[in-house]
Amino acid sequence: MTVPDVSNSISPIVTLGLGLIGGSLLRAAAPLAPVAGWSPTLESREAARSAGFTIFDTVEDAIAHAADTDALLVLAAPVTAFDVLLDRVAEVAPAVKLTDVGSVKAVVFEQVQQRCPDARYIGSHPMAGTAFSGWAAGSATLFQDAAWVTCLDEDSDLGVWTDVARLALAIGSRVVPVEAAAHDDAVARISHLPHLLALALAQVAEAGGALPLALAASSFADGTRVAGTRPELIRAMCEANRPALVGAMDEFLGLLGVARGSLSSTGSLQKLTAGGHDARLAFERRDEGLTRLTLRGDDLVDQLLSVGSAGGYVTGLIGSDPDLQVEVCYPDED
Amino acid sequence: MTVPDVSNSISPIVTLGLGLIGGSLLRAAAPLAPVAGWSPTLESREAARSAGFTIFDTVEDAIAHAADTDALLVLAAPVTAFDVLLDRVAEVAPAVKLTDVGSVKAVVFEQVQQRCPDARYIGSHPMAGTAFSGWAAGSATLFQDAAWVTCLDEDSDLGVWTDVARLALAIGSRVVPVEAAAHDDAVARISHLPHLLALALAQVAEAGGALPLALAASSFADGTRVAGTRPELIRAMCEANRPALVGAMDEFLGLLGVARGSLSSTGSLQKLTAGGHDARLAFERRDEGLTRLTLRGDDLVDQLLSVGSAGGYVTGLIGSDPDLQVEVCYPDED
Repeated sequence: MTVPDVSNSISPIVTLGLGLIGGSLLRAAAPLAPVAGWSPTLESREAARSAGFTIFDTVEDAIAHAADTDALLVLAAPVTAFDVLLDRVAEVAPAVKLTDVGSVKAVVFEQVQQRCPDARYIGSHPMAGTAFSGWAAGSATLFQDAAWVTCLDEDSDLGVWTDVARLALAIGSRVVPVEAAAHDDAVARISHLPHLLALALAQVAEAGGALPLALAASSFADGTRVAGTRPELIRAMCEANRPALVGAMDEFLGLLGVARGSLSSTGSLQKLTAGGHDARLAFERRDEGLTRLTLRGDDLVDQLLSVGSAGGYVTGLIGSDPDLQVEVCYPDED
Repeated sequence: MTVPDVSNSISPIVTLGLGLIGGSLLRAAAPLAPVAGWSPTLESREAARSAGFTIFDTVEDAIAHAADTDALLVLAAPVTAFDVLLDRVAEVAPAVKLTDVGSVKAVVFEQVQQRCPDARYIGSHPMAGTAFSGWAAGSATLFQDAAWVTCLDEDSDLGVWTDVARLALAIGSRVVPVEAAAHDDAVARISHLPHLLALALAQVAEAGGALPLALAASSFADGTRVAGTRPELIRAMCEANRPALVGAMDEFLGLLGVARGSLSSTGSLQKLTAGGHDARLAFERRDEGLTRLTLRGDDLVDQLLSVGSAGGYVTGLIGSDPDLQVEVCYPDED
């Protein structure tokens, strides 16, 4: 008689929210595990139901179902709606296994501590998206090759982290273990700031009359693409990451201001072009020269955080806590 | 006996430069007219020759060939090389039909006036490109659906303008008639500024350590794509457009600075997100609701410039100066 090996199985999933991320997660996880969901929008619920998914009419029923099936409950709503959702979770299933896919992590961690302190919570953030939103924009392949941030600290529940990481790996993502504050600083630089630059660039072009927009080609189209995202979604994610984003804006304003001064006074953009080009090449080469390693032991959380901050990620999990082994890769130092 | 209608035929082409633009132009025009070229780089000359093109070993021979065949001579080198090339043109064929594909237009116009005043010159600028460069990066379809700027003023030679416009239309571009200064202001906003933003954004991300570049996804990849362009090419085009670019940078720094203040003090990014989103939508909708018209008459240059500054473009040419008729379309006012 063989005992089924469940150590690599995917936990059932219940998503609160059926937009781009929640809807894509349902589609991606459906072949791997039982999935269900809820949305405040009737239209989204009906569309998801028509596609064959189990969808609840009330948030309470969805949360209760997650608790009943030992599912991972996923907050997949805009961050601005988390307060209300967490209050419902605290009422219906206070000790549920909980994650979220919000684009800021320190603020959400505090909200969970305050409103739902008994939840077994691991924050996460799949770095995938498009300028489109809503159920119809979702896709089962959205998370393929994406970085999926998973937050860790010394108090984290490694069992729930393992559930989140196995889900993310199973749907094609790279799992990046980080501290919440490090995540917020990083996404301010590579997600929130680019949205603000796109918005301001579009305005500068439009301010020049009809000609600039008529002449605009790929550098403008690419540089402003995310300005097509719904403004309320951009506001929700950027305003929630205020301190880190203000810092990133200041760095950017400083760099561009110095370049402006140099162009105006000496006519040269040498420093900006050289530094910026090198930085872009570093991005293009981020997947080159990776070292592979298997982590285990008591200080696993510290080891995982070191891998994440070095630009590395998790590629596989073997066994479960306290005998969990984690396969990782990370860039060589040189 | 039928007389061949040559009014819509394409002039022979000789390009000085076989890089992305010059090489693409040769490939695109080859099925339509006799084409030939020259490059200072032996490797490019040999690659183009291997592809079956007529390539001269010296710039003087290429210029003389253009004059002998009444070809349109195209300066397709970096703008920083125009001085030297124009001196050769003035020596070998001072009254040649001349255009250029440089990314600034007022400065080049002045150079032509000073160094080669008898050339029948029409400045142009195809708004097409990639982050790659060189002969190998070229493509016969590069100009398909691109805006092709053609400069006009009251002294312009409409015959040469017609040659440039027919060439651009034949290879799939929209022909946009503009004054040189209006072009320079517009490209500062929609091409040069986006390059500087991409460079600074890449640097801000890299300054955050290994994590931001590891997490970076499509908003960062798109926002920094053109930072992958060779730095010397970015410098050449941006530094040549200094006054207009400083102005665009100041507008941008102002907008982003105000947004930074608003985020920091009130927590709101409402103004930037709303204005930027509307501007992006205006760009996405630029091809909607176009009015078509055929222009003719003594004030044709003024009419054409009005169409260009309204965001319109030329779609066809009938006959030749002084009986030239120009089919145009432009966005409705409302």
